[in-house]
Amino acid sequence: MDLIPIDDAEDPRIEPYRHIRERDLIGRDGLFIAEGEVVLRLLLSAHSRFRPLSILAAEGRAATALELRAEAERRGAIDLPIQLPIHVASRRVMDSIAGFPIHRGLLALGRRGTDPEPAALLPAGPALVLGLVGIANHDNVGGVFRNAAAFGAAAVLLDGQSCDPLYRKAIRVSVGAALTVPFSRGGSADEMVGTLAGHGFEVFALSPAGPESLHDVAWPARRALLVGTEGEGLPPSLLSRLRSVRIDMAPGFDSLNLATASGIALHAACGTVIRPSRN
Amino acid sequence: MDLIPIDDAEDPRIEPYRHIRERDLIGRDGLFIAEGEVVLRLLLSAHSRFRPLSILAAEGRAATALELRAEAERRGAIDLPIQLPIHVASRRVMDSIAGFPIHRGLLALGRRGTDPEPAALLPAGPALVLGLVGIANHDNVGGVFRNAAAFGAAAVLLDGQSCDPLYRKAIRVSVGAALTVPFSRGGSADEMVGTLAGHGFEVFALSPAGPESLHDVAWPARRALLVGTEGEGLPPSLLSRLRSVRIDMAPGFDSLNLATASGIALHAACGTVIRPSRN
Repeated sequence: MDLIPIDDAEDPRIEPYRHIRERDLIGRDGLFIAEGEVVLRLLLSAHSRFRPLSILAAEGRAATALELRAEAERRGAIDLPIQLPIHVASRRVMDSIAGFPIHRGLLALGRRGTDPEPAALLPAGPALVLGLVGIANHDNVGGVFRNAAAFGAAAVLLDGQSCDPLYRKAIRVSVGAALTVPFSRGGSADEMVGTLAGHGFEVFALSPAGPESLHDVAWPARRALLVGTEGEGLPPSLLSRLRSVRIDMAPGFDSLNLATASGIALHAACGTVIRPSRN
Repeated sequence: MDLIPIDDAEDPRIEPYRHIRERDLIGRDGLFIAEGEVVLRLLLSAHSRFRPLSILAAEGRAATALELRAEAERRGAIDLPIQLPIHVASRRVMDSIAGFPIHRGLLALGRRGTDPEPAALLPAGPALVLGLVGIANHDNVGGVFRNAAAFGAAAVLLDGQSCDPLYRKAIRVSVGAALTVPFSRGGSADEMVGTLAGHGFEVFALSPAGPESLHDVAWPARRALLVGTEGEGLPPSLLSRLRSVRIDMAPGFDSLNLATASGIALHAACGTVIRPSRN
């Protein structure tokens, strides 16, 4: 059946999976861990920017893992490592590897390679780019990537205070979009704005106090949306020198979840990007 | 200090709090449990549709509980029970009551009273109403209520398959909006649509396959948005006889979180409701 049984959580062949609880594998090996069938399907598809190195499946999910690999090989769309290894472990070994119950029973190890420079991600022509400043919550980053994919953002730029989109939980919440939407991470918000402006992007800062309503913006062809945290928002020094747009809300309850706010703004800004026929 | 110490999780004075893990207190006593400082502040304010019966605070949060009550009494905005009781328990008792660690250390018991009939919630004049069909996930219902409050929805109608907005977790995710936005729950989606149409609302069904783009709708004064689950969506029998609108998305990744989708649709539909000067 071409499966590698693992009976011992200390087996060196699954060593990288034992770090699943760590938030940040970057510095270590340039690896990441993806979780669940939907995300693994994406990682094994041509849409993924990253390559899988191996799969670790609970016994009950071994058949699914074989199917996923066979399908990817049949399509021939990506270079899989010669015989992408599938390790199979009992639920007990699986849980002890992760330190918590992994309900979905399917993990994959991926190689992230080197993160690109922001400038390398900015395409020519009409484009929508999203910038994240200080977003340290993995759920929020995952949710934002899901929206970025849905609304055709060309890239997501994250400042150095924002968290890693390739952390397992962020990938899961993004439903795999963190594997498909190009991103860079590092530097300051000022540097990010400088790069965007230098490449001809008009930068719109999202803020509840923005003088311009999202409903009224005539979007330029090259547009970037900048989003800060739910609590603090974007730094005043940035807001004061950028075009700042607000989401109109009912009086007295001006509170939106960050992912929802990003979705609303991306939906408003994406017009010509995903539907060239309208403005 | 006017606090009631509780040394025993079995103390009958805190009996209702012991059911915090139950999803549905409705049938039992018409009670609900709210959690956390932000939500309690709202429950103790004039914005809440419901009255608090008591507070249960961990030792470290007793001062906050006293402050919250004093502030509500000072405002005199609501009828508090004569001396709203504040029970104080050790973290150990608190955790054993809940069966899990309550990190926020502040709970309140509220009385829900009788849920109104849907028709009683529909105001005269221009209004936006939200209808939920089969939304059984408490996170989603909470997220949707947060958006309904942000965009000035007059009411949320839930069918009988949708879950209770007054379940603790839904209230928490809604940041208290489940306590402020009027709602009804019960009956079928067909009955809901009938009630809305009978009161002069045009009903728009949100669906990825909708022939009309949300960008292009000229919203009538009385408008209702109908939202189904992330997976199944709304029943085809409903979609076929309602005006169905879609959120335009990039090709190949037409997946949005339900709360985000509801936020985008409410933002598009709320125009004249929260900003009478524009269409």
